[in-house]
Amino acid sequence: MDEKQFDKLDSIRVKALDDILGKPFPVLNDGFIRVIDYMGSDESIVQAARVSYGKGTKKVHQDRGLIRYLMRHRHTTPFEMCEIKLHMRVPMDCWRQWIRHRTASVNEYSTRYSLAIDAAQSTKPDEWRIQSESNRQGSEGYADAEMGNKLTNEETKLHSLSRDIYNRRIESGIAREQARKDLPLSTYTEAYWKIDLHNLFHFLSLRMDSHAQLEIRLYSEIIGKEIVKRWVPIAWDAFEDFRLGSNEFSKLELDIMSKINMNNNEDALLLADNAGWLEKREDGSLKQNLERIEFEEKLNRINSKIPWLL
Amino acid sequence: MDEKQFDKLDSIRVKALDDILGKPFPVLNDGFIRVIDYMGSDESIVQAARVSYGKGTKKVHQDRGLIRYLMRHRHTTPFEMCEIKLHMRVPMDCWRQWIRHRTASVNEYSTRYSLAIDAAQSTKPDEWRIQSESNRQGSEGYADAEMGNKLTNEETKLHSLSRDIYNRRIESGIAREQARKDLPLSTYTEAYWKIDLHNLFHFLSLRMDSHAQLEIRLYSEIIGKEIVKRWVPIAWDAFEDFRLGSNEFSKLELDIMSKINMNNNEDALLLADNAGWLEKREDGSLKQNLERIEFEEKLNRINSKIPWLL
Amino acid sequence: MDEKQFDKLDSIRVKALDDILGKPFPVLNDGFIRVIDYMGSDESIVQAARVSYGKGTKKVHQDRGLIRYLMRHRHTTPFEMCEIKLHMRVPMDCWRQWIRHRTASVNEYSTRYSLAIDAAQSTKPDEWRIQSESNRQGSEGYADAEMGNKLTNEETKLHSLSRDIYNRRIESGIAREQARKDLPLSTYTEAYWKIDLHNLFHFLSLRMDSHAQLEIRLYSEIIGKEIVKRWVPIAWDAFEDFRLGSNEFSKLELDIMSKINMNNNEDALLLADNAGWLEKREDGSLKQNLERIEFEEKLNRINSKIPWLL
Amino acid sequence: MDEKQFDKLDSIRVKALDDILGKPFPVLNDGFIRVIDYMGSDESIVQAARVSYGKGTKKVHQDRGLIRYLMRHRHTTPFEMCEIKLHMRVPMDCWRQWIRHRTASVNEYSTRYSLAIDAAQSTKPDEWRIQSESNRQGSEGYADAEMGNKLTNEETKLHSLSRDIYNRRIESGIAREQARKDLPLSTYTEAYWKIDLHNLFHFLSLRMDSHAQLEIRLYSEIIGKEIVKRWVPIAWDAFEDFRLGSNEFSKLELDIMSKINMNNNEDALLLADNAGWLEKREDGSLKQNLERIEFEEKLNRINSKIPWLL
Repeated sequence: MDEKQFDKLDSIRVKALDDILGKPFPVLNDGFIRVIDYMGSDESIVQAARVSYGKGTKKVHQDRGLIRYLMRHRHTTPFEMCEIKLHMRVPMDCWRQWIRHRTASVNEYSTRYSLAIDAAQSTKPDEWRIQSESNRQGSEGYADAEMGNKLTNEETKLHSLSRDIYNRRIESGIAREQARKDLPLSTYTEAYWKIDLHNLFHFLSLRMDSHAQLEIRLYSEIIGKEIVKRWVPIAWDAFEDFRLGSNEFSKLELDIMSKINMNNNEDALLLADNAGWLEKREDGSLKQNLERIEFEEKLNRINSKIPWLL
Repeated sequence: MDEKQFDKLDSIRVKALDDILGKPFPVLNDGFIRVIDYMGSDESIVQAARVSYGKGTKKVHQDRGLIRYLMRHRHTTPFEMCEIKLHMRVPMDCWRQWIRHRTASVNEYSTRYSLAIDAAQSTKPDEWRIQSESNRQGSEGYADAEMGNKLTNEETKLHSLSRDIYNRRIESGIAREQARKDLPLSTYTEAYWKIDLHNLFHFLSLRMDSHAQLEIRLYSEIIGKEIVKRWVPIAWDAFEDFRLGSNEFSKLELDIMSKINMNNNEDALLLADNAGWLEKREDGSLKQNLERIEFEEKLNRINSKIPWLL
Repeated sequence: MDEKQFDKLDSIRVKALDDILGKPFPVLNDGFIRVIDYMGSDESIVQAARVSYGKGTKKVHQDRGLIRYLMRHRHTTPFEMCEIKLHMRVPMDCWRQWIRHRTASVNEYSTRYSLAIDAAQSTKPDEWRIQSESNRQGSEGYADAEMGNKLTNEETKLHSLSRDIYNRRIESGIAREQARKDLPLSTYTEAYWKIDLHNLFHFLSLRMDSHAQLEIRLYSEIIGKEIVKRWVPIAWDAFEDFRLGSNEFSKLELDIMSKINMNNNEDALLLADNAGWLEKREDGSLKQNLERIEFEEKLNRINSKIPWLL
Repeated sequence: MDEKQFDKLDSIRVKALDDILGKPFPVLNDGFIRVIDYMGSDESIVQAARVSYGKGTKKVHQDRGLIRYLMRHRHTTPFEMCEIKLHMRVPMDCWRQWIRHRTASVNEYSTRYSLAIDAAQSTKPDEWRIQSESNRQGSEGYADAEMGNKLTNEETKLHSLSRDIYNRRIESGIAREQARKDLPLSTYTEAYWKIDLHNLFHFLSLRMDSHAQLEIRLYSEIIGKEIVKRWVPIAWDAFEDFRLGSNEFSKLELDIMSKINMNNNEDALLLADNAGWLEKREDGSLKQNLERIEFEEKLNRINSKIPWLL
């Protein structure tokens, strides 16, 4: 590289991200995630948006204001102009969720072609999570030490047995594509995963969410807080403000909030009742209604009173 | 068809939409839109969601509640299970916007292969819209009668001249692919357009919006109110409530609303000020700040007070 | 449904496919695949292609000729106008390959939300395949009875143990999302899978190929020969002729074939040699060269002589 | 940038492409195309493919052989690992074709937001192409000087008039979004266009083809020969050999070639006849049959005899 090229590259590279190129961030007992390469920066988001707006508008918006505007109004195409390529090691169970995001390019380690990676996600005694009662697809709290120890022991033996059987099949000359069929879902796989920033934000908004499964959430938080934040700090701020930390209110909810703000409790209750939110059990308590309960959580978030709980 | 098949089809067809299959809805001076075929219904959204949830959960959710839940939480894949195919005639200028939606299948009339459709979108004297001052990509109000007449006359002559030149090129043996090069953008084209319901809702949320250009908005409103509403009435209701009529509040906005609801004006102002929303001009009035202005509109929608406008 | 509607539907439905709607075709020991719904037919491919070609061209092409033309020249959009929705039960290991096809809509059975399906793909003693020597990702031949019996026994025990451990975790109150982590990849899952005909053909061309893994090939063959063939018989014929049974020859290969046909062996050998295909081992035999070997197979297919094997 | 970073970047940048970053290649009378940024190289294709193949296989394949293998067998995902972002100025008529490729990210200059670019694609007297007789969507030869002059004159006047009318609308305060409605399709637009290498190769295979319209072909050839060739020279070579210069033969065609190579003319004729290729007119000449004619062209390419033309 000569000096002129350094200058050229300097203007399109992000030093904070170049600094961690190739550096693996560990996740879970044996997983990792690292940046292989990327294209674009906060500036390229602005640059792409401005080709839409034509010349002469550069002074009107500051970069930061423009990026926040794009995020707020879901003008997504300028964010597509940034691209990142990651390399990661993930348990197959987690990968099953990951791969559901279709707008990415993927090259995964092939257990048809090569021997399965000799590592599985192990669970420590204090990591066994209890099924949530309220949320059919969630967990809350942890198993006690005794049960934890028992489950971890069992898991260790199962991992070991599965791997022995896999190895025996391979040694017996069985095809790798078939020998792998009974590996546990906790077996690690590796992949190159390339995605644009718009679709990555969409992935993060779903997978950094508190309802996402813990394992994929751990990977997502590394991607968000260690990688994207370094890469496009202004877009990341906007994402935190307008996506991660935002709440959406439906037309009905806005109507009820309007009545609340006018101190018109009666009409607020009427709207809620018409929506079927206020049906009661025989004992007079409100029946469970998911839509109403979620609205109550959003009202609590903004310290609003809740007409039917006064 | 024998009777058994009638029964089978009965369960997967939507009578209200079958009734208008092939019927063109007119749009603009010479455009139209009509349904060619479709697959799925409100019931197939539910059916697809329930394969995810497994057996034994049918009683818990009513169909309506489930569809609203899916819409609210942007669980989009069940909506992808419905598909619709439309046939339309649209000015090329409008088509240029339409085709930006990439997740659809398209077959467009080819002016390389066939003669260009002999029709252009004409503008009546009272339809000329004035450039909006506040919104660089919008319009407000209409030109007066005198100017309208003048512009319409000019347009008529231009359409006529362009078509004459096109025809002369064709008669001179020029290739259709080249002869068309100077047709006005107002020339009509036709297309088959096939899209799933999730992506159609996304299209409609952008193109039924008041900021969308009038022409494409007219098509979108037909699609929404005449077609989708007949096809999947429950999903349409949820879409109107949770998308068309909803508002999203950022983390910062929620924080400020929280202070407002606690009657803590001082902290509300502080938060706004830290965000740079309250900078003043020399005359003491607030500088224009798009983010703050949009928040004010959302606060007005719910009849909330606005701390800095008290 | 009244009579008029029957007629309308008659023209857009395919009786041969309506006849098997919902009927499951069994695959593997406990899998199946069945059609839930579809949209379009051979006629809609033609209809969509003709909107591109405009009016007045209907007589020129017969439907069959047009569909073959579209397939031959990879004019893919008219095939996208047909859509099909399948429901299937597939081992997760097979599903891992399936889901790599991104242009489909999917709703999969959730083992976070519900108990894992209590079935795994079992392997009979005579079904254990031997690793291919020549193809790193293939198999050839089967294990003998003794080894087969041993491996099947081991598999049965492993399946049973894995399921016991899963059940014990569930009974201990462990969250379903975590309890499932060590299920074997052979565990069955279910999904609704919706895809357009163009992308389905692409899927089939890869997964009906002799290099595809046996398990997914069995599903693909059902889809192709039992479903697509009934649905769009003309397009299926074209697919068999122009995709499944076709061969592509590179520029270099065409050049060599040209020399062969002119009986110019010398130049044919020169071209091959320049490409590095004719390097020899010390014993005078040709070194292995994948590109040359694949060309030889294609030449054999057309009974051509092979200059370097004369 | 410090020295360590130079080294790091050196390994992931392609000097030959960095050399032309930002440099516009002129196309047509006022268009251009230039590279804004890119990610990846020949080496990243190999790197991504090798994650699939696992460790220990590096020596087996040489990079060149591996890339050619991937191209030949349409293993497309490693090519997706390279990404490029271009900036171009293109006539809207050409852009209408361009934008049909859906797997790209696009930011186009907005004529709602800004004044339309004041330039249209003009046609010189010797550039008017004559409609092809044999190919409904093609051209062959050029108009003579007299007609060329006449048509160019007419075009110049039309461009001038259209622009005057556009300007008068703008001066009259008409909204930009409406004022533009009668601009000729030859008006230039600009866009940022970002696409991965696999999809770019697909674009090039269609748009560098001799059947593509001249205008978009000129852009494609710049992309291919001036940009992609510099960027990924090994992949480009493979693309030229296995895509641009290749021919595909259908099952039927392979069967006939097999008979030809066995000097079994009788059976070759029988196969062709059964396919309906040999129907005759009253005067004994062969009826036109597109499939047969295209096969004849492919047979001529390899200097094969053609049984029915002996």
